[in-house]
Amino acid sequence: MTPLPRALAAEAVGTAGLLAAIVGSGIMAERLTHDVGLQLLANAVATVAALAVLIAVIAPVSGAHFNPAVSLAQAVRRDLPWSHFPGYAVAQVAGGVLGVALANLMYELAPLHFSDKPRTGVGQWVGEIVATAGLVLVVGHVSRGGRGDRAPWLVAAWILAAYWFTSSTSFANPAVTIARMFSDTFAGITPAHVLPFLAAQVTGVGFGLAGIHLFVLEPRLEPKEQS
Amino acid sequence: MTPLPRALAAEAVGTAGLLAAIVGSGIMAERLTHDVGLQLLANAVATVAALAVLIAVIAPVSGAHFNPAVSLAQAVRRDLPWSHFPGYAVAQVAGGVLGVALANLMYELAPLHFSDKPRTGVGQWVGEIVATAGLVLVVGHVSRGGRGDRAPWLVAAWILAAYWFTSSTSFANPAVTIARMFSDTFAGITPAHVLPFLAAQVTGVGFGLAGIHLFVLEPRLEPKEQS
Amino acid sequence: MTPLPRALAAEAVGTAGLLAAIVGSGIMAERLTHDVGLQLLANAVATVAALAVLIAVIAPVSGAHFNPAVSLAQAVRRDLPWSHFPGYAVAQVAGGVLGVALANLMYELAPLHFSDKPRTGVGQWVGEIVATAGLVLVVGHVSRGGRGDRAPWLVAAWILAAYWFTSSTSFANPAVTIARMFSDTFAGITPAHVLPFLAAQVTGVGFGLAGIHLFVLEPRLEPKEQS
Amino acid sequence: MTPLPRALAAEAVGTAGLLAAIVGSGIMAERLTHDVGLQLLANAVATVAALAVLIAVIAPVSGAHFNPAVSLAQAVRRDLPWSHFPGYAVAQVAGGVLGVALANLMYELAPLHFSDKPRTGVGQWVGEIVATAGLVLVVGHVSRGGRGDRAPWLVAAWILAAYWFTSSTSFANPAVTIARMFSDTFAGITPAHVLPFLAAQVTGVGFGLAGIHLFVLEPRLEPKEQS
Repeated sequence: MTPLPRALAAEAVGTAGLLAAIVGSGIMAERLTHDVGLQLLANAVATVAALAVLIAVIAPVSGAHFNPAVSLAQAVRRDLPWSHFPGYAVAQVAGGVLGVALANLMYELAPLHFSDKPRTGVGQWVGEIVATAGLVLVVGHVSRGGRGDRAPWLVAAWILAAYWFTSSTSFANPAVTIARMFSDTFAGITPAHVLPFLAAQVTGVGFGLAGIHLFVLEPRLEPKEQS
Repeated sequence: MTPLPRALAAEAVGTAGLLAAIVGSGIMAERLTHDVGLQLLANAVATVAALAVLIAVIAPVSGAHFNPAVSLAQAVRRDLPWSHFPGYAVAQVAGGVLGVALANLMYELAPLHFSDKPRTGVGQWVGEIVATAGLVLVVGHVSRGGRGDRAPWLVAAWILAAYWFTSSTSFANPAVTIARMFSDTFAGITPAHVLPFLAAQVTGVGFGLAGIHLFVLEPRLEPKEQS
Repeated sequence: MTPLPRALAAEAVGTAGLLAAIVGSGIMAERLTHDVGLQLLANAVATVAALAVLIAVIAPVSGAHFNPAVSLAQAVRRDLPWSHFPGYAVAQVAGGVLGVALANLMYELAPLHFSDKPRTGVGQWVGEIVATAGLVLVVGHVSRGGRGDRAPWLVAAWILAAYWFTSSTSFANPAVTIARMFSDTFAGITPAHVLPFLAAQVTGVGFGLAGIHLFVLEPRLEPKEQS
Repeated sequence: MTPLPRALAAEAVGTAGLLAAIVGSGIMAERLTHDVGLQLLANAVATVAALAVLIAVIAPVSGAHFNPAVSLAQAVRRDLPWSHFPGYAVAQVAGGVLGVALANLMYELAPLHFSDKPRTGVGQWVGEIVATAGLVLVVGHVSRGGRGDRAPWLVAAWILAAYWFTSSTSFANPAVTIARMFSDTFAGITPAHVLPFLAAQVTGVGFGLAGIHLFVLEPRLEPKEQS
């Protein structure tokens, strides 16, 4: 088992990479095209490509959650010790904010600045519930039956789909949501609209766990097989 | 073997997810860009990414058909007991309609409303025959020779191709066709044009089964190997 | 070993599917967008998605060449009996022409009509040499060392790249070249420009075989392992 | 073990193919669309598709570095003998320049001509550090634990992401950087801006090696398992 400090560093670095990819590709897309559909396509493709790589590389160290909602679900399922959950969540949020700063630095913007991009409404909150529930179900699937090798591509495929089919463009991640407050770009979210997103994500965890209960029937394997 | 009620729930949830992806990404695409080519590209990519994930997660429970045409073909080939076919078809159609309602809810539209988008003509019916025949052949291929792990990506790749090369944009699925009556968006189909699509899809099942007979030569493996 | 008539049927059906995908997605792309870059992107993505599926499904029956240039290279390398080569080539060309007719039928165009799209010049001929040589090298790689399972995705990835980086958009296939004479669309080629393309493709086979000689070092495995 | 001359030929051919893909698809994109976002998307997709294929085919011969920064990192980690490093770097740079000439030839441009495209500034240098560090970490991951089969897709996914999220569009490769001086197109870089890019890439190697030290914990396997 990886020592906790190393796992927390891995979660922080991985979440930083994820946010750098989300925000950086959002800025690049805004600068290169005026077609917002193409902006979202490029942003989604770059994000999930980075996500797949980060999951593959970091999973052996920390499980590669990069997401307090996923860590919460794994804790409920006893795949993560509850005592590790707070550290994971803090590392993920801190890493996410650093990743936004890194993206802003690459584009010579102020490292952290607040977004004023509104993202609100019942429709988007339902979108966050759906996106997060699906993500938790996918993670549940790959955590059982020796399917860890599928994790990078299935998680990436889910997020790619959810980017486009949910009305919220699928944040599905409290660390991502908090970090994206600090970028006034294509990828940002105004701070006032963060809390309902977090509530929807926690609700989504509940639905996702119900989905696992119904549809993931394989027993846990020996620890090294879990992603 | 999964108990039937759980399998039916899995088919309903999976088909709901598929339709939410199809209709949701269609609405998003329409809102973000005026380029219809880009709309179809985003719609196709989001749909098949969701489809791959749903097949991977649901296949161990119910086979992940999400499609009465596929269930029909599997019943003919004795991979699905005939007595299960009606339940599968009902669960798929009901799930599909719920998925459309979910997509409409996410975008704050009326949950169900009729489409007036015309989709008709011999060319499109030929398109549906080709798309469905190919899908049935792919499913036949992955159901033999222990190839279940290939199912998510091969089915997704076929649908991605067929979205673009068939003139009908590849419905290839009676549950999808019926459900898409209830969304007056990019992804809809006017009710008057549904029946010929269903007839073409059933015809496609026939061609697909002929293709399996010619080209899929491997014997059935023990049940757990079948996707 | 598959009986030859079944293998020839498989080559014809597979090549028909490939051409239907190339020409059908080209027509769809032309109709949906005026951006030629987006047309080529959609055309390329649809083509290689279909190609990957067709290779996966047909390879166990006939090797899934769909391409006289590939069959020629495999014959030189003794992976295809020389006596089978003429039948393969005829089946591929005939299947390709049928596939174009099917695409035209889906879009309610005349089944076969000549293209007047020019594709000529030293640059494009060099493009065909490069695209074909690379394809032959990839096929050589996956035909050795038990790597048959890689064939669908590596061949698809090569063609996707070559669609965009070669100046000819990578025909790389005599059957495809001949068949595309019969479609006066985005994907066509005027008959007068076909012969130099074929000559370039045969030249590319030579370079590809040289590449195999240099870089593919694994011995042949037992027949069933060859793709 | 492959004899060194064959390995150097493989590195040269592979790097030539990579550069032909980068520059060729850049020229094609510029000619087909005015949307710079779409140009970068096509350029990125074509590049990483070619890269994945080239890695898969060439890795058994030379490791498929195509990149002096990667060879440097592998030498530091004793996965490449230090005595081979200079030969690798020369072969990569020479191959890269030949690849640019091949691309220019395909598009009937002068074989080699200097670019005047500026690429400079602290933001872009940080981008190169991030892109190269991530690449080195990915290569470190796939070089351990018998993960060589993951190399084509993980490296391709990383470069795809980095193309879009780093402000420099991710050169991440001294051979690529030097070769792209010789193409006055979408993909070029003016000679005056090359040196800081190289310095940033070497810096990125350092961060990447630190990442490997922290996050890649598996022992080296027997030589044939290393990619």
